[in-house]
Order: sequence, then structure tokens, then C-alpha cells
Amino acid sequence: MSSESKIALYETTGFPNPARVRAALAEKGSLSQVEFIEVDVMNLEHRTEAFYAINPLGTVPVLRTLEGEYLSESTAITEYIDAFFDGPSLTGTTPLERGMIHMMQRRAEAMVMDAVGTYFHHATKGLGPALETYQCSEWGNHQKQRALAGFSYFNQHLEHNLYVAADTFSMADITLFYGLAFAEFAGIDIPAELTNLIGWRQTMSERPCFSAS
Amino acid sequence: MSSESKIALYETTGFPNPARVRAALAEKGSLSQVEFIEVDVMNLEHRTEAFYAINPLGTVPVLRTLEGEYLSESTAITEYIDAFFDGPSLTGTTPLERGMIHMMQRRAEAMVMDAVGTYFHHATKGLGPALETYQCSEWGNHQKQRALAGFSYFNQHLEHNLYVAADTFSMADITLFYGLAFAEFAGIDIPAELTNLIGWRQTMSERPCFSAS
Ligand SMILES: N[C@@H](CCC(=O)N[C@@H](CS)C(=O)NCC(=O)O)C(=O)O
Ligand SMILES: N[C@@H](CCC(=O)N[C@@H](CS)C(=O)NCC(=O)O)C(=O)O
Repeated sequence: MSSESKIALYETTGFPNPARVRAALAEKGSLSQVEFIEVDVMNLEHRTEAFYAINPLGTVPVLRTLEGEYLSESTAITEYIDAFFDGPSLTGTTPLERGMIHMMQRRAEAMVMDAVGTYFHHATKGLGPALETYQCSEWGNHQKQRALAGFSYFNQHLEHNLYVAADTFSMADITLFYGLAFAEFAGIDIPAELTNLIGWRQTMSERPCFSAS
Repeated sequence: MSSESKIALYETTGFPNPARVRAALAEKGSLSQVEFIEVDVMNLEHRTEAFYAINPLGTVPVLRTLEGEYLSESTAITEYIDAFFDGPSLTGTTPLERGMIHMMQRRAEAMVMDAVGTYFHHATKGLGPALETYQCSEWGNHQKQRALAGFSYFNQHLEHNLYVAADTFSMADITLFYGLAFAEFAGIDIPAELTNLIGWRQTMSERPCFSAS
């Protein structure tokens, strides 16, 4: 059990969505202020009554806030972290920055992270038969095409931009970075001609928040 | 053509996602400060080069900001509107409010609005053969079940809460309200025993932002 006086992150090592929150914490310089609690997804710990009580959707990450509330959804958790801790803004400060970062974050999520996830869970063995209790392979394969279209979109976007959403690093970069990591894991290669996307990923991989976590 | 000195909303009358942005503007008392531009979705205006240039995903709503940038994604547009205009906060001010509102907004979107949308576009005639160029009916029907599970989840949540995400009205209420409107349009009825959800919807329907728009 964990002490209630500290923020706690329920996560599963090696999984892409929890990694997004780790990176946000690292960027804010706040990793040491958070307790990490491992959830054993491969043994279905996230599909127990105890876990559904903190996240009815049965997914990681979940953050227990300092107020003792449970937050799921990486974007929502990042909003909390960004407003709670000092350090560089990850979600923007002006109206335009906030709008652009949320838009590009959502595009990275829908077009890459979630498209890859649907392919992985529906058109491949995914996490294995104990976890993948319903699969729709036609839809999964369709989402692979969507992910590849997403790669092209971001490749074009990154021709004239150093970052995904703004003049500086933001949560949109974090989502795309782990979306590409998930794609690699799921066996969806970035086509070699998408040199802007490949270059951006290389630059990002040297950023401390992506290696310290 | 529209004057560049005013914020402009590209929308399609009667469609649920543009309605979310109208409601946000109404709640902020800012409808009069925005120009509305109708996009003829039924005649494929959103799949032209001109429209893809302002939203590569080819969906409404799109907001042209005062700075002349184009924002898509209702959540991102609402972030801009909320930070730009005075009036009651729709996205929260404290870290916890921001986290809770973004979490519940995303649940309303994933579990209701987008689940209903997938059912509508994939398992029914949707917008007709000219627009529905790819359909996966198995996945569409699966999402109908997901929408019904979403109804149950929110029904339970609203047993002890007046609003979806906070002690006050927020963008999470807006998303759920139009998610239910879309469900009704798509022929997914709210089961009569979900009295909290039905009562909440009735109360909300009397709110000026949902009738003025
Ligand atoms: N939209 C959620 C996605 C969370 C999610 O899907 N997490 C995965 C791990 S990366 C999970 O818990 N999967 C459990 C399962 O597939 O059963 C977020 O932003 O956090
Ligand atoms: N996630 C987007 C969804 C936008 C969306 O799907 N809009 C619908 C109208 S409600 C649309 O443009 N549909 C066009 C089509 O289906 O071709 C948002 O939050 O705004």
C-alpha cells in the first residue's frame, strides 16, 4: 500500500501511455515527488474490482492526486501535472498555445497512438488470448493504414516545425514520441522516405525526459 | 469570404461536434463576437482541397482564431475560447479541476460521442453512400454496445453529481449533452431505467447555452 500524502502514479513499465506521464513528470523535474505503483497488466490486475474502482475503464496510467482523487487519461493527468508543478509549460499559456497544443496532441493520439493501439490489439496477437477477449481484425488492419497516413501527416508538418505543436516542446511531442515507439513495437515501420519524422524522432530521443524515465 | 479581423467558426448546422463549440461560446456570452461560416458537408465541401488546407482531417468544427490560425478538435477549440473570452471557466482553474474536467470530457467523448459516431457511420446508412466510402459494420455494432455501457457509466456517476466533472458546469457536460443528442438521432435510445442520466439531460436542456444556439 502507498502513503496517501504523496502523489502516486499507477503504471505498467514498458507501456506507452504510462510513459507519457513519466515524460511529463521528468520534463517538470518532478519525478522525485511522485510514488510509482506497478500494475501487473499481463496478469490482469487492471481488470479487478479494486482497479476498476480507481479507473472504470481499466487502463493505465492512473494518477492519485495530492487531494486523493484518481485521474485517468494521459492528457488529463498531464493537465494536472502541468498546473500543479513548476517548470516549463507542457500545455501552453496563451489561448492560441493552449488551442494548438490540444489540437496537435489529439491528432497525435488519434492518428498515431490510438490507431497503432487498435491495430496491435485487433489485428495482431496483441497482449495474448487472456487479454484480447474481443478482436475485430478488419478494423485493426484499417487502423494500420490510418497510422501510416498519420506518419505522412506529421512528416509534412515537421518539415517546417521543430516541435509538433508550438515553438517549444509540449505534450503533443510526448504523445507522438510514444506513439512512434508503440508503432515500432507493433511492427509498423516508418517508411524511410519520411525523413522529417525520422529526424525529429532522433532529436527527441536525446531529450532527457525520454531517456531518464 | 469572411473578414479576417474576427474569430470565425466553420460549422455545419445540426451536427453534434460544431454544436459543442456553439454551446461553449454561448456559455461565455461570446456568440456575437464570432462569425459563423456554414460548411456544406452533405455536398462534400469538407472534402475539398480548400477545406483540407484548414483541417487536414476534413471535419467540422474548425475555428479561425483572431491570430488567423485554424484550430480543429472541439476540445482544443474550447480551450482557446475558454482562455480567450471572459465568463465562467469551462475547463477549470485549479490543477484538480483541470484534470477532472479533461478526464470526464474525454470519457464522454470516447464512451458516448465517438462510440455513437462510429455506430452511425459504420453500422447504419450514416450520411449516405457518397460520404460513407468505407464501412466496417462489425466494429460499428460493437461501438453501439460501448455507447450503451457509456450511458450506464454516466447514469451511475450522475447519481451523486449534478454535473459531469465538477461542482459546476464544464465542457464535459457539453460533450455528454451532444453525445446523447447524437445517440437519439442515430436511434440509440437511453434505457428507461437510467433515470439519473435522463434527469440530468432534462435539466441541461433548459440551460440557455443549449437552447440559444
Ligand atoms: N486514452 C488512455 C489510454 C490508456 C491505455 O490504453 N493504456 C493501456 C496501456 S498503454 C492499457 O491500460 N491497456 C490495458 C489493456 O489493453 O487491457 C490514456 O490516454 O491514458
Ligand atoms: N473529434 C472531432 C470530431 C469532428 C467530427 O467528426 N465532426 C463531424 C460532424 S459532427 C464531421 O465533420 N463529419 C464529416 C464526415 O463524417 O465526413 C471534434 O472533436 O471536433
